Parts: sequence; structure tokens; C-alpha cells
Amino acid sequence: MDKSHVIQMNGVSVRGVLDPAKLKSRRQRSWGVRASEMSKNTLNPIRAIVDGMKLTPNPDKPMISLSIGDPTVFGNMPTDDKVLQAMKEAIDSQKYNGYAPSVGYQKSREAVANFYSRPGAPLEAKDVILTSGCSQAIELCINVLCNPGDNILVPCPGFSLYKTLAVSLGVQVKLYNLLPEKSWEVDLQHLESLIDSRTACLIVTNPSNPCGSVYSKEHLQNIISGAVSLRPSGAFTVTTDSVFPDCSFHPMAPLSSDVPILSCGGLAKRWLVPGWRMGWILIHDRNNVFGSEIREGLVKLSQRILGACTIVQGALESIFNNTPHEFYQSTVSFIKANSEICYSALSTVPGLTPVMPSGAMYLMVGIDMDNFPEFQNDVDFTERLVTEQSVFCLPATAFEYPDFFRVVVTVPEDMMMEACARIREFCARHYRPCSTDSNEIDQ
Amino acid sequence: MDKSHVIQMNGVSVRGVLDPAKLKSRRQRSWGVRASEMSKNTLNPIRAIVDGMKLTPNPDKPMISLSIGDPTVFGNMPTDDKVLQAMKEAIDSQKYNGYAPSVGYQKSREAVANFYSRPGAPLEAKDVILTSGCSQAIELCINVLCNPGDNILVPCPGFSLYKTLAVSLGVQVKLYNLLPEKSWEVDLQHLESLIDSRTACLIVTNPSNPCGSVYSKEHLQNIISGAVSLRPSGAFTVTTDSVFPDCSFHPMAPLSSDVPILSCGGLAKRWLVPGWRMGWILIHDRNNVFGSEIREGLVKLSQRILGACTIVQGALESIFNNTPHEFYQSTVSFIKANSEICYSALSTVPGLTPVMPSGAMYLMVGIDMDNFPEFQNDVDFTERLVTEQSVFCLPATAFEYPDFFRVVVTVPEDMMMEACARIREFCARHYRPCSTDSNEIDQ
Repeated sequence: MDKSHVIQMNGVSVRGVLDPAKLKSRRQRSWGVRASEMSKNTLNPIRAIVDGMKLTPNPDKPMISLSIGDPTVFGNMPTDDKVLQAMKEAIDSQKYNGYAPSVGYQKSREAVANFYSRPGAPLEAKDVILTSGCSQAIELCINVLCNPGDNILVPCPGFSLYKTLAVSLGVQVKLYNLLPEKSWEVDLQHLESLIDSRTACLIVTNPSNPCGSVYSKEHLQNIISGAVSLRPSGAFTVTTDSVFPDCSFHPMAPLSSDVPILSCGGLAKRWLVPGWRMGWILIHDRNNVFGSEIREGLVKLSQRILGACTIVQGALESIFNNTPHEFYQSTVSFIKANSEICYSALSTVPGLTPVMPSGAMYLMVGIDMDNFPEFQNDVDFTERLVTEQSVFCLPATAFEYPDFFRVVVTVPEDMMMEACARIREFCARHYRPCSTDSNEIDQ
Repeated sequence: MDKSHVIQMNGVSVRGVLDPAKLKSRRQRSWGVRASEMSKNTLNPIRAIVDGMKLTPNPDKPMISLSIGDPTVFGNMPTDDKVLQAMKEAIDSQKYNGYAPSVGYQKSREAVANFYSRPGAPLEAKDVILTSGCSQAIELCINVLCNPGDNILVPCPGFSLYKTLAVSLGVQVKLYNLLPEKSWEVDLQHLESLIDSRTACLIVTNPSNPCGSVYSKEHLQNIISGAVSLRPSGAFTVTTDSVFPDCSFHPMAPLSSDVPILSCGGLAKRWLVPGWRMGWILIHDRNNVFGSEIREGLVKLSQRILGACTIVQGALESIFNNTPHEFYQSTVSFIKANSEICYSALSTVPGLTPVMPSGAMYLMVGIDMDNFPEFQNDVDFTERLVTEQSVFCLPATAFEYPDFFRVVVTVPEDMMMEACARIREFCARHYRPCSTDSNEIDQ
């Protein structure tokens, strides 16, 4: 083999640098393989923050983790027996072992369409794409709507995955503010100010993770008419699909016929089986704004890795038809009761400002940092809460919203109460009133 | 809202063109949403070719489809009862409904490691990443090893997904030839000639889809020492994991300690449940060439959409431990018997050159196109085979290998025989001997 050939062959780790001397020294050192830019740019802020925290619980108190948005971890919220039965029937039928179409079985898509169809926003099987969890649904939506250099509008605080997926594709994320004092409604003026010629889509999360807010019909209409009339490419909504008994959930799609909407959802939170990775995209496009291009794009993208496990797909129709209404009711009643316990308990804690949710399974709590001068920020605050009280809440910096923390309210009631008592104790110990005196001294 | 603002807001579909007059006319026309470049560049050649074919079977003959690489379609190859039982136990345990770590449960990764560990290539749980089917395993490998502008070496004929995934990321595909006359061994000289400074990895498929070839230890060693010593970033192998009883399968990993290898596999073909989307990546890197970067890159990428359905993950250990050896044996014996039927039958058909496989579930057949002057190419040939004989085989143009077609050999034996008889009849009708006379006339 000739010399120049060798140099070329070894150029992988020295791209653009073809000095033979350097090549040789690198070659002797090691055959290093570098990870791609895309993998380096796939950043999970929750992991980045949590991994950087020193989480050493107080050995005298059993750990209570209120950080993970997984309703199954405490065993107190099992899915319904009918859901398990549907799965076992799908297995026994032996009809669901082969490849399904990449967008899902026609019959399963039909089942989703029937379940989510509304008078103002009808759905057929062709409007449903089944995916491997809601995460893949979100990935496909971003991938089909955005090119590198585009930007997307993402709620703040909001679920970190939108940013993780977008940034790795070279898509810019513009955060629009939610207003805690208005139960996390969208700051419409801020939202509208962010839209520009490269805005590819608007993401609306309703009910919201991490806020647990559920938008009124009027507010959704304001979002549509105010911001969406400015014509970003489209909107997509992500829903966690559980709303407290006395609140109404209004899907966005029936409220506007001319705004095309991709709605992402899944079995995870409503049927309490997030690990099953069963998600979907509902395509609402009554005025054919997306046209065939977006539909075809979604189909093409779905062929990359295919979608959801066929057993779960096979069970879908039965899950929708046979899960008793009481199951949904008891789930949301339980979450509401726990939210009320948490909200009431923390409302009376000086230095904290909880915001009562209307759905989902989370509650956000504001920290008046001025009253806790020992702590630099929410990350510091929640870290020390673990050290002293063995209670772990996710600092909302993970949602790009400092000075708040998120409480997951799916834990058993007694743990919820115990956790709140410990948070109260913690705050009482570290609270320092901001007297006007100190301001005067400063002046 | 001021005028310039409106123009900006409506600029989405007119990027780079900011002439207000044009903008206005476009605005009046429609609010068109364009699909992303990535979705447009996600091309599935099989779909492109099959969708373009006029597949109208002969109404007098029942259709026999030998085109789909799915062993479950005819119902003659069910998975083992123990596999189904493992799934139902996982469901009943209620232990596998929540989120798993994005790379899979530790215990399930350990089960895969134990099953695939070999003396020369030991594996631990940390060396296994669980994925949503082998497709996602391949996607993660390409995504972690390649940047846009890089190239990858892909076998020809080969599975089309490599190209689909790579091209959509801006990664160039270089096809290296396999040699039908050498049972589809790699043309090493051709392979080596393709490697350059931007070669990010070499993909080896063994056993091969679509060829059914299984490489000898010596040939794999030649691939490693010949091509891989030229140091592309790494290699990854994709295996369909079933080999005929009298053939030996040699995984590539134990044959070299200094070449880092990512090996992709899954439950699909060996356990006959492709729809369950259970795949994995095995990281073989005894000399730490990948280092932590590639491992961390894979972990980060796995967090994008999480991986396999937790129920299947929960069943894995039991599937590996309890599936009887006879199940594997009877599967490969059946496929081998069918392959022999097909090979023997088509060997004696003038104008066809079948290549006997040693594993997988496919058999490739060469078409001496000169002897079939009525047909332009393999697509034309296989289309007419449907029209006249209601037998559908995939034209190997779908694998970038014209003048061949692929036969899936998992059909029931009587259908295999019937299909071969019809192919024989078809060829007999259209075969035209190439006499040397005609050459003389030409001269």
C-alpha cells in the first residue's frame, strides 16, 4: 500500500489536517473515535442538572422522591385490569407479532380516531399516526415541520424534550412566558413578539407539564387568533390528557378550522402505563393547510424506525372500549385531592407560593429567594431539602424557570402529607423575612 | 400591527423572498406549510419501487407474495409458547408499566449481555443498549458515528434502511460490492478502495438481508484485517441471527480486539416477533477505542424517544432462558428445507441463477436479462411475474442490485413449491436463448 494511501486512510480523526507528521503521531497515540455532533448536541437539561446535584438524603429520614413524572413508581396507581386483559388477549390472539405498517395498524389508528374525534374536529384513521410513545410523536412533529435554522416557540416553563430534540437538529428554541399569576396562561404579547419569518411552529402544552394548568376555551381562542394568525407554519399541542373532575378540557383543534394542528398524546399518563411506549399524532387540518406534504412527510419519517409495539397496538381498541369510566375518575380525583393537600399545606408556608393545578400530575411552587438568603437558587434550595429532609423535588431550572420547584402529586397521600410537613420545617428553618429596614440600611 | 411586521410574519413560505407584492399574492393563495428537508430526504427505496409497480395479479391464480421479510404473515411460523408466556407474566407482574431508563432496564440489559457474551468477546450489562427494534439500533449507531458530510460503507446488495437513515442526515453512502459467485462474500479490494478520510464506519450484515449469506471466520478476519485496519471510525454489524443447522455463525467481535464494533440485533427474526420492536446494540470495545464518548453519545441519543416497550423488556430474561432449543432448530431447519426446495427448483430454470443461502430467510436469484429480451430490468420482470403468475418477489433494484430478485423462504412448503413451478412456467414462456449467431449478425 502506498504512503499517500495510508495517510488518507488514517485521516478520520484528523479531518482537515493532513500534515503527515501530525498524522503519524496521532496514529501512534490511539485510534480515537469521536461521537457525532448530533449526539453531543442532544442535551437533556434534567439530567444535566440532576446529575450535577449532590443528593445525599438525611439518614434519619426515609427518602421521599417527588421528582419523577411517573405515576407507577409508588404502586398506588396501578392501571386498570381491563387494560392488562386487553394486552393478554392481544398476545393470545397471535395476530400482532408481525410488522405493522410504519404508521400503525389501520384498525388501531381507527380506534384512536374514534376515541378522540369531536364534533368540531372529526378524525378518521388516516388522521392518526401511531408512534413509539409521545416522545416519538413530538420528534416526528418537529422533524417534519422544521429545517435547521428555523425556530420553534416553546412554553416556559415547559417540558425539556422539545429543546433537546430541536437543538440537536439545529433548530432554535424561543421560549414564550407563561404567567404563574394567571394560572400559567400564555403571555400572548410575549409570544407574538417572538414570531419571525423562520418560525416553524408553536408548541402548546395543555394540560401542562410541569405546571398542571388547563387552559380555558377563551384563552385557547386567544392563542389561536392572536398568535397563530401571524402564521407560523403550524401548531402542535402536546397533552397529558388528564384533567381534574370540575375542570373542562378543551382540545385546541375544534376552536379553529384554518390553523393546522398536530396533537401529540399517548397511553402513558391517562392509562398509567408510560413504559409501554404507545403514542400518537392526531392530524387536524380541516382546511387542508398542511396539504399532502406534511402527511406524506410524517409517513416517510415513520419508516425510519417504525412505531409502537404491535401488542400494545393490538390492545388499543379494547383499552379504549373497556376501560371503565370509574378508572379515569378515580385517577383524577386522587390527583386532585393530593394537589389540594399539597397546595393547602404549602400556601401557608412563608416564602413559598404554590400554584394550584387543574390537571396533569404536577404542582409548581414558587420560592421567594429573597427570603432564603442561604440559597443561591432553586437548585441549591432543592439540593439542601434532600440533605436535610430527604425530600426531592425537581428544581424548575430544569424547565428553564428558576426560583420554582415542581412537585409530582401522584405519591400516596400519607407521603404527600409527610413531604409537605418536612418542606414546611425546612422553610421555617431557613426563612429570613425581608424587612424594609434592611432596604433602608442598604440605601 | 405595522406593515413591515405583517410582512415578516408571513414570510414562512417565502424564505429569502421579501418582495411585499409577491408576499401578498402568496398570502392570498393559501397558507401552505412545507415539509422539512429531512422528511423529504427520508427515502425508502423499497416503497418507491413497489409503489411504482403495477401489481395486478392473474385473477385465475391465487396470489403468492414472496416479497415481505416478515416470518409471521403466513401463520406457519408462530413464535414459541414460552415467549408468549414470558410476556403475559411480565404483564401480570405489574412491574413493567413505568418508565424504564432510556437504555433499558439494567436486568434486561444483563439478560442480553449474558445471552450474547462469548469467550472472545465478553459482554456486561453496560455494553448493551436496548432499542425500539433493530431499526432504532441502526439509527442510533449511524447517528452517533456520523456527521453530515461523512460517508459510510454499505454492502450491495444490502438492506435499504442504512441508506434511508444516512441520506436524511446528510451522510453519504458508499456501496461496496458483494460477490454472488462467492456466496456473497465482500469484494475486499472494492471495499478498501472506497475508504477515505471521511469514512465514519463500515456496515457488515451477517447473516445478510437480502442474500442469506453467512460469512466464514476467515472471511470476517479478512474484512477486519484488510479494510478495518485502514481505520474508519468503527464498524457495526447487523445480524438477523438465524443460521442453518450445518453452518457456523461467527460473530465479528471476538475476531479482533482492536476494532471497535457495535453489533445490532433484536428479537424479530430469531424469535419471530418483528412487530414487538425489541432491539439492541452490543458494544464491543475491548481496547477502549470508542472510549466513553461513543457510549455517552449512545446514552444521550437514547433519551430522545426512549427505547423498547417495557413489557417486552420485562419478558426478555425469561424469553432467553426458557425458549426451548428445539424452537430455534425447527425454525432454521424449516427455512433451510424451503431454501433447498427453492434453490433446486430454480437452478434448473434456464435464465435464472439462484444463490443458495446459509442463513436468514432470503434467497437471491439472478436473472440473465439477455435471455429475457421482453423485459427491461428486474422491476419489469417481477411486475410481469405478478401479472401472469400472481407471484410477487421483490426486485433487487430495491437493494441497489439490479437483475436479481429476492425470494422470502418462510412461506409454507406447498406455496414455495407452487411459486417455483409458476416461476418456471413464466421463465419458460419468456426465455429466448442467446445464440452466438445473433452476435455474428451484429458484427
